[in-house]
Amino acid sequence: MLRIITQEAEAQTELKRIGDRTYDGETLHKEATVREILQTVQRQGDKALLDYTAEFDRQTLTLEQLRVSGSELDAAYQQVSKELLDAIVLARQRIEAFHRQRIPKSWVQFDDDEVVLGKRYTPVDRAGLYVPGGRAAYPSTVLMNAIPAKVAKVPKIVMVTPPGEGGKITPAVLVAAQEAGVTEIYRVGGAQAVAALAYGTKTIPKVDIITGPGNIYVTLAKKLVYGIVGIDSLAGPSEVLVIADSQANPVHIAADLLAQAEHDPMAAAILLTTDADLATKVQWEVEQQLLNHPRRLLTEKAIAHYGLIVVVDSLETAARLSNLFAPEHLELEIADPWALLESIRHAGAIFLGNSTPEAVGDYLAGPNHTLPTSGAARYASALGVETFLKHSSLIQYSSGALNKMSGAIQALAQAEGLHSHSESVRLRTEED
Amino acid sequence: MLRIITQEAEAQTELKRIGDRTYDGETLHKEATVREILQTVQRQGDKALLDYTAEFDRQTLTLEQLRVSGSELDAAYQQVSKELLDAIVLARQRIEAFHRQRIPKSWVQFDDDEVVLGKRYTPVDRAGLYVPGGRAAYPSTVLMNAIPAKVAKVPKIVMVTPPGEGGKITPAVLVAAQEAGVTEIYRVGGAQAVAALAYGTKTIPKVDIITGPGNIYVTLAKKLVYGIVGIDSLAGPSEVLVIADSQANPVHIAADLLAQAEHDPMAAAILLTTDADLATKVQWEVEQQLLNHPRRLLTEKAIAHYGLIVVVDSLETAARLSNLFAPEHLELEIADPWALLESIRHAGAIFLGNSTPEAVGDYLAGPNHTLPTSGAARYASALGVETFLKHSSLIQYSSGALNKMSGAIQALAQAEGLHSHSESVRLRTEED
Repeated sequence: MLRIITQEAEAQTELKRIGDRTYDGETLHKEATVREILQTVQRQGDKALLDYTAEFDRQTLTLEQLRVSGSELDAAYQQVSKELLDAIVLARQRIEAFHRQRIPKSWVQFDDDEVVLGKRYTPVDRAGLYVPGGRAAYPSTVLMNAIPAKVAKVPKIVMVTPPGEGGKITPAVLVAAQEAGVTEIYRVGGAQAVAALAYGTKTIPKVDIITGPGNIYVTLAKKLVYGIVGIDSLAGPSEVLVIADSQANPVHIAADLLAQAEHDPMAAAILLTTDADLATKVQWEVEQQLLNHPRRLLTEKAIAHYGLIVVVDSLETAARLSNLFAPEHLELEIADPWALLESIRHAGAIFLGNSTPEAVGDYLAGPNHTLPTSGAARYASALGVETFLKHSSLIQYSSGALNKMSGAIQALAQAEGLHSHSESVRLRTEED
Repeated sequence: MLRIITQEAEAQTELKRIGDRTYDGETLHKEATVREILQTVQRQGDKALLDYTAEFDRQTLTLEQLRVSGSELDAAYQQVSKELLDAIVLARQRIEAFHRQRIPKSWVQFDDDEVVLGKRYTPVDRAGLYVPGGRAAYPSTVLMNAIPAKVAKVPKIVMVTPPGEGGKITPAVLVAAQEAGVTEIYRVGGAQAVAALAYGTKTIPKVDIITGPGNIYVTLAKKLVYGIVGIDSLAGPSEVLVIADSQANPVHIAADLLAQAEHDPMAAAILLTTDADLATKVQWEVEQQLLNHPRRLLTEKAIAHYGLIVVVDSLETAARLSNLFAPEHLELEIADPWALLESIRHAGAIFLGNSTPEAVGDYLAGPNHTLPTSGAARYASALGVETFLKHSSLIQYSSGALNKMSGAIQALAQAEGLHSHSESVRLRTEED
């Protein structure tokens, strides 16, 4: 049963408890396992990948089967319905259109004083996308990770995903990958897949950045290889926080909370409402909708442990509590969502109004669904084209410009005890 | 002696060796120490900070001395020369002017089909800046880290730096901090300072993101707390790669190479040149300038281990080798630097022409001097205002817009087996 609380102090404690739920408790002893997997792949390459796949995924592959073949990719299109293919294409178009907006552009500025400054943006050479398999084999994950890389003009987009029964990969995932512009796909998952992308093997190319969600082993592997390659973020369990007033529909809100909870027994679903009556109705509705839920057990677990309704005295209090939690997804099911926006400081994505359930953004509104979790919205943002771009600063001084700045640079260099820094300027300017 | 090589295959091997030089060899056993420091600070708070400061920095502080007082901050201005103060102010102005350019701005777009999409940028609440002490007590580090946070309008900018003799902090560092907009300064360094910023203590506030360079303990601590807070990057030893042709001045290039080497025995200084004669002259000049170098031993070590001159057959070859290395700093001391720029794919900052030694950018050209090292320029960029900003995606659908997309969203949700995702849309659209 979804708990209802009304005291702000208790709400703060509970939100902190829920916000701190991470896979952290399990990490330390798993880290040793992951470290060993990384080292083994580094040493043995492809052989280690096949061995771990046999061990963890129970699939025996040959070296040739590691890469998904052209004929399997073609065949995938025959295995998805016309309706699903159309939906994937529609989602691809809308996600791509959104990601094409306001991409950072290179610029150069020529100053009066013979100084040229600028920034030059270039894509990474190779991106590696981790796509989970099994229960969480989601074509939408493929679209959301690959499209920003494609829009950033990354020349090589490598996808890895664990094989299912008979070594198969879900056809919808293969279709989404092709639609999104993935350039090659390998049948490997877990920490071993992250290792392959970070170090490279004979078959799988070393990449520059690894993105995409995964289980605790994948996440630990990403953290450990960070610095050797770039990573997008460390994904924790997913969460939604809904702020609702009396005009909101309890049936819709219950569905939204369950849509979060059905992801993972550690998913969090929180409602902050100014209306005690709505709170009770949502609580009841959640029970009703759980009755025939195809993932009832898992979803009930999430609701029991990390579900919460808080009745608050005002929308401002709700915004304040939401900022403490810094939710991955924030729904504002209130009469004037735009008015409350100014009070919101931290949230991965904000869904405004009664007709914008999170599912819209999960699939095809356009903005990325890979969002900061576990309070990371305090400092991080959605995956985006920027994830696959980096820039070089550009600096050019004329000899006259250097002369003008020479005294200040030498003063600073000498204060820092950096002799040759100072000399590199003095030698250029005293000779002129 | 700075080695000269001429074979491209050997150059590739050597550049890989130099690029792979990291503190990694030492990390595993130091990680256990760092983990213990993090846990102790988390458990004991301020007490642990004072204990570690006594142990590692050999300074006995009281709890009251942890925070740098107003009178010490005021006094710092009396302890720097007028010339240095002017240089700090000039650098601050120029760095701030550059960082104010092209800051990402919030936007909202209203579509014809009753869809509103946008991005809303907000700063982090609290930034924590790590500033090294001792030999590397650099006011420029303070400016480069604090100014982007200030430009991003971060309300609280907390600085930590280890105390020197008598608990003192270099006056130039305190002046730079005040000029740059730091809001509070604490006398603590090492992994314990990172722990204080990540977890918070009674005296030191928990922050949202930790930036700034440090030794291997600081870097390991940043990697370990990443995910609890954001971090800017994992700083490795610094490096410069110079591409020069026959018109370049060997005296200047030698100074530039030494300006890198004097930072750290692990710093790398590389010259790629099309002119064998220039190679020999630079080699000789480096020897000359080392003779009276105040940090001769340290600098010679860096030159001996991680210094290299490669004579290449063309500037295109130089660009290709440079891209393999992905240098933190790249100097193009060639007749037409802008022509070669198109061939450069990865570099933290690019210094164009003969009158732009790296020192210009280190101090006051404006672009940030906190740059990706150890090949991280393949996927990362300079510290910037963006480091302290994050955005929330904004999505609003009208009920009509949701109706239009309802079929596609349900098709995708059902393909992914996410019942309530589908229901959250169906319940809203079938009722209408």
